[in-house]
Amino acid sequence: MAASVGIDVGGTKCLAVLLVDGVVVADRKVATPPGAPDLIEVLSGLVEALDGDRSVSSVGVGMPGLVDRLGVVRSAPNLAGAQGLAVRHELQSRLGRAVSVDNDATCAALGEVRLGAAVGFDDVIMVTLGTGIGGGIVAGGDVLRGANGFAGEVGHMVVDPCGPPCRCGRRGCWERFASGSALGRLGREAVAAGAAPAILAAAEGITEAVEGRHVTAAAAGGDPGALEVMDRFATLVALGLANLCAVLDPQAVVVGGGLIAAGDVLLGPVRHALASMLMAAELRPPVAIVGAALGERAGAVGAACLGLSGPNRANADSRVGG
Amino acid sequence: MAASVGIDVGGTKCLAVLLVDGVVVADRKVATPPGAPDLIEVLSGLVEALDGDRSVSSVGVGMPGLVDRLGVVRSAPNLAGAQGLAVRHELQSRLGRAVSVDNDATCAALGEVRLGAAVGFDDVIMVTLGTGIGGGIVAGGDVLRGANGFAGEVGHMVVDPCGPPCRCGRRGCWERFASGSALGRLGREAVAAGAAPAILAAAEGITEAVEGRHVTAAAAGGDPGALEVMDRFATLVALGLANLCAVLDPQAVVVGGGLIAAGDVLLGPVRHALASMLMAAELRPPVAIVGAALGERAGAVGAACLGLSGPNRANADSRVGG
Repeated sequence: MAASVGIDVGGTKCLAVLLVDGVVVADRKVATPPGAPDLIEVLSGLVEALDGDRSVSSVGVGMPGLVDRLGVVRSAPNLAGAQGLAVRHELQSRLGRAVSVDNDATCAALGEVRLGAAVGFDDVIMVTLGTGIGGGIVAGGDVLRGANGFAGEVGHMVVDPCGPPCRCGRRGCWERFASGSALGRLGREAVAAGAAPAILAAAEGITEAVEGRHVTAAAAGGDPGALEVMDRFATLVALGLANLCAVLDPQAVVVGGGLIAAGDVLLGPVRHALASMLMAAELRPPVAIVGAALGERAGAVGAACLGLSGPNRANADSRVGG
Repeated sequence: MAASVGIDVGGTKCLAVLLVDGVVVADRKVATPPGAPDLIEVLSGLVEALDGDRSVSSVGVGMPGLVDRLGVVRSAPNLAGAQGLAVRHELQSRLGRAVSVDNDATCAALGEVRLGAAVGFDDVIMVTLGTGIGGGIVAGGDVLRGANGFAGEVGHMVVDPCGPPCRCGRRGCWERFASGSALGRLGREAVAAGAAPAILAAAEGITEAVEGRHVTAAAAGGDPGALEVMDRFATLVALGLANLCAVLDPQAVVVGGGLIAAGDVLLGPVRHALASMLMAAELRPPVAIVGAALGERAGAVGAACLGLSGPNRANADSRVGG
């Protein structure tokens, strides 16, 4: 029996699953504590709660931000308390068993490849469209980490050097155009121009309250203005995906994040736009554009899969001092 | 003794090397024939010429264009006669021994990692700045091929959706801004504006004749106008490199192609520009930006290395019908 615990640490909550032979048999959710010592305590408690009889051989953790190959969180804009935290070392010391740690989006990608929407594919890109754009890459069946563990920061590809400023300090990053936040902004612009009353209605009449989900809701209802916004947004999503396809040549792209609840209202226009933007499209099978199947559990399931791969795979070495 | 023959097939010439224990002990260069049957004949002849006693166990070939995982050339804009040619199958039948085939830039990347400028690095991007921009990716010590063998088409990342049209049918591809051809265009614009007399002098007074090498020559001579053109060009090169670093997190970028003869006149400004554009630069060791060390032999040496890795690694399977 292969059993492992995977934990996805988010800015507000930690979600843990017990994975036995590829099936989630139990889960737990708790609030993320603000401070680093408490976080290790909470993670340790989640493992113990899910593994009362200590039958689990491995533990995996997905952390937001940049995680180096030693399992140290080097940068965590959405979880300041974890900055610099040696999650792998600390948790391993505490638990007395092997722990693997990686970026949360990378874990989600692995989860979707092993047990979700991309089962059967070896070359997969996962993008999560939320406040920003997270990314995870699986190449040849295994996670692509890069020299320092920082690979997959796809949201910070610059797609327009004269574009709006990004929180990373540069201009025109893809996530400024194609994240959930960006869809909200496109929606507010359409509402302000009087072009999308159904979006405004979805946001209960408050222009400033319009978010991406209001646009997808109005588009799902068939509102022409909202559908037009979705088409423009899909073109911007496809722009980055086409770049990633040129560089990585995947079989499939898994799209996750809150927006994916909209399903084909989002994915349909993205598929359509990508078809016309993909380099050498006529020479390869279509790249499958699929919605994430594991929902909010993807990161935790992937972290559990990461644990099963063993710490030697996940955190074998690092060229970054940690 | 590990011996292999590697051949780099270019638009005008084929360069072959005999590699024994990591050393090029012989080479041959012949004109590339226009037709497919003649090409197999020529490749076969090169192998036989370099391996008179049949001591070589493996053969590798780098081909321009898109090469699928079965070793079939699916697209070859610069070598129309090779389009659709099953190089691996045909040459293997002819020679009676294992043959591996991959894209020429991918071969060059492998050559630089195994025996050139990137020895000791496992995560490397190679870009060749020529008429377009070629790319090869080594991740975790091995070539990254993608699902269909088409990975590494880095020149076709779109970095400005409103940019000039590209031969691939889209707009604003990186190679429109940062190839050798693009440097020539920047040089001609500077000359036309009267801003770079030294560039014009390097091109013997003919504005239309200005190429990238005239700009680098004038910059090497210290001409302020040419140095300014180099700085603008370097920013455009760094723009794409920063994107690749965000996605792939390499230790090193190897820059090849004809322009690299200019050495630090090119690489200095690129390093400077990249330092300010690299995401999370403060959290990782500097990405080494190095010139290709194997010169025009990189592709052939890499093809020989590919051969040594064995056909199972290079052309194991394909999801593209071949």
